[in-house]
Order: sequence, then C-alpha cells, then structure tokens
Amino acid sequence: MKLTFSPASPFARKVRIAAIELGLIDRIEFTPVTVAPGTPNDEYSKINPVKKLPVLILDNGEVIADSYVIVEYLDELAGGGKLIPASGTAKWRMKTDHSLLQGMLDSMLLCRYENMTRPENLRWKTWSDDHWSRAWNGMARFSAREDVLSGPLTVAQIALVCVLGYADFRFADCGWRKTYPKLDAFHQKMLERSSVKISLPPPA
Amino acid sequence: MKLTFSPASPFARKVRIAAIELGLIDRIEFTPVTVAPGTPNDEYSKINPVKKLPVLILDNGEVIADSYVIVEYLDELAGGGKLIPASGTAKWRMKTDHSLLQGMLDSMLLCRYENMTRPENLRWKTWSDDHWSRAWNGMARFSAREDVLSGPLTVAQIALVCVLGYADFRFADCGWRKTYPKLDAFHQKMLERSSVKISLPPPA
Repeated sequence: MKLTFSPASPFARKVRIAAIELGLIDRIEFTPVTVAPGTPNDEYSKINPVKKLPVLILDNGEVIADSYVIVEYLDELAGGGKLIPASGTAKWRMKTDHSLLQGMLDSMLLCRYENMTRPENLRWKTWSDDHWSRAWNGMARFSAREDVLSGPLTVAQIALVCVLGYADFRFADCGWRKTYPKLDAFHQKMLERSSVKISLPPPA
Repeated sequence: MKLTFSPASPFARKVRIAAIELGLIDRIEFTPVTVAPGTPNDEYSKINPVKKLPVLILDNGEVIADSYVIVEYLDELAGGGKLIPASGTAKWRMKTDHSLLQGMLDSMLLCRYENMTRPENLRWKTWSDDHWSRAWNGMARFSAREDVLSGPLTVAQIALVCVLGYADFRFADCGWRKTYPKLDAFHQKMLERSSVKISLPPPA
C-alpha cells in the first residue's frame, strides 16, 4: 500500500501513528506529495480531486480517502476494534470526539493559511480569530475529558496528539500548555510511545 | 432526538434526507441554529466547540457530531446496512466517495465565505478559484461514476445531491448542468424522491 504523505500534515501523522500502533507500518510505502492552497497539483488532483492529504492507495489501485477512513480501514485490516471501539456508546462517543478534533485541525489549518499563505494585505483577523477560538474551545473541552485523556489508545487520543503537535509546530506561542496543564500531561505521556515521538513534525 | 439545523446547510440536508429514507424522521425534532464565520454563538459553541451544523442530541443528552457520523448512527438505529454498505469493497468505496463529496462541500462553503462573508477588499481570488476547482474536479469525477449515479441509494448519493443542490443555491450561474449532463440526469431522478424534493434549499 502507498500513503500520500507530508511530514507537516497532521492528518498524515494521524495515519502514521495508527499504522505503527496497529503493526502495519511495514506494509505502507510513504509517497511524499506537496499540496497548498493556490498552488495547482494536477497530478495529485487526478488521484484526489479535493487535493487533500493523505490518501491510501491499495495494491489493486483502489484509493481510500480521508485520514479517518484510512484509520478505520487499517483497524479492520488489523482485526478490528483496536483503535475504534467496535460498538455501543463508546463507539459513538469516540467517533464524535474524533469529528470535533478533525474540525479543530481544519480550523487550525485555516488559521495557518490566513496568517501565512494569504497575501498580508488580504488577511481578515475576524476569520482567523473565529477559527482559532474553535481550536481553543475544543482544547478546553478535551482538557476536561478524563475518560479520553486516561483511557485506552483510540484514534481520538491519536487525533488529540496531532492537534497539540500541530499547535507546537505552527502556533508555538499560543500557550496551550499553560492554559491546559492536563493536556500537557497527556501529551507528555503520549510521547513515551515511539509512534508519537518519531512522527513529531519537523522544526517549523 | 434533536437535530441542530439550518435550511441552508447542505450537511443538515444530508441528515434530513437520510432520516426520511430510514423512516426515522418522526423521531427527530429540528432545532434551528444560526452559525456563521466571524459571528460568535457562545451557546452553540458549548454544544459543539467547532461551531458546525448539524449535531444530533440524543434523549439521554449524548451529542453525536458530524453529519456523516449522524447518518451512520441513524443507519444503525434503522437496522444497519441501509445507506452504508455493511462490508467489503463496497463499504470502503462508499466511505471514500462520501469523504470526497464532504471535501467538495467544504470547499464550496469556503468559496461562499470568501465571496460573500469576507469584506470585499480582503478577498483573494487565488483561494476561491482553488477551492472552486476542487468542487468542479470532484463533479467531473462523479459524473464518470456510473456505479454511483445508477446504484442503490447510499449516503454518497445523498451527499452528491446535496453538493448539486448547494451549487444551485449559492452558485446558480456555475453551469454544472451543461458541463455535467449525467449529473443533471442523476439529480432529476433523485428529485422524484420526496425526501430530496422537500429538503431543497430555500430560494437564495
């Protein structure tokens, strides 16, 4: 299998951590791809018309899109119920948590594009403030979720690590550790996993 | 159950169509909520920190977030395997299709915000052109997917109807019917379903 990948993508990082934890990393070849708003990549648009990373390309050519769907696929390949609870309230709670974390990451990327990619004279602070507040409110939400912070490894925990790693990578001065010490403790504990440690984003 | 809802939201429309098709619509109370970038909604942010529509609030207070996860939940409630294939290649293909359609809708909303919500002097055509091209390339992709256009009803078909309805609603002059006559035929056929017809967005 091939995974389209960038070391800066928090979505690709999520899949990488999951693949390591599921024991499937050796079956995946990482294919570097560069995508950025305003920069065409016609070759990649043929694979994924919405131009997002990552996608998983199976050996039979079938493409699986969206980091969460890829993790679901890998989880099933590893036997099922490993990183995603198989049924009941735990399953729906985990899926909802993951959706919120995905929304937080989407908002953080929109802030990044607003503050760095968009020409300086066209930036709208109201927009980036709104999206930042979504990420920040989300951190507050998860900071109070002892069940997520101390529970067994799930794709929601992995997504939360990717949110916090992306905050360090692109918003180094935001001060999340000071405001959310419980998230700091969670992040420290997660860094004991080699999957989390070796997938840290490169220096900004 | 309560669904946070706006008649203009293509994501809420997807859930509404699914709930009708699954025979669950009478169990859902629709709660109107207004969200817009740059406009705080502190009350709703407490329910969903990323401020997106819709969420489903169960009778026990549990919240299910993300339109796709809500449809999955309703599908399971209706017995399972109704709008989402239960297993195999069909399942992963449908999930990937839905992810691409979700990405197309996200890009269309970003275009809308860029062209209408953002102050006129701060608009960046490169950004809206890029996101529009993602929606447009996605339409080309699905226009060639006979299996989706003529297959049994799935959440991917429903999402495609929501993409096309949103194109009519917010980008009435984009000309998708002329460029993609197969999508036009699909849309016409889908409009024979009352779920699709009664959920059309309001006049723009």
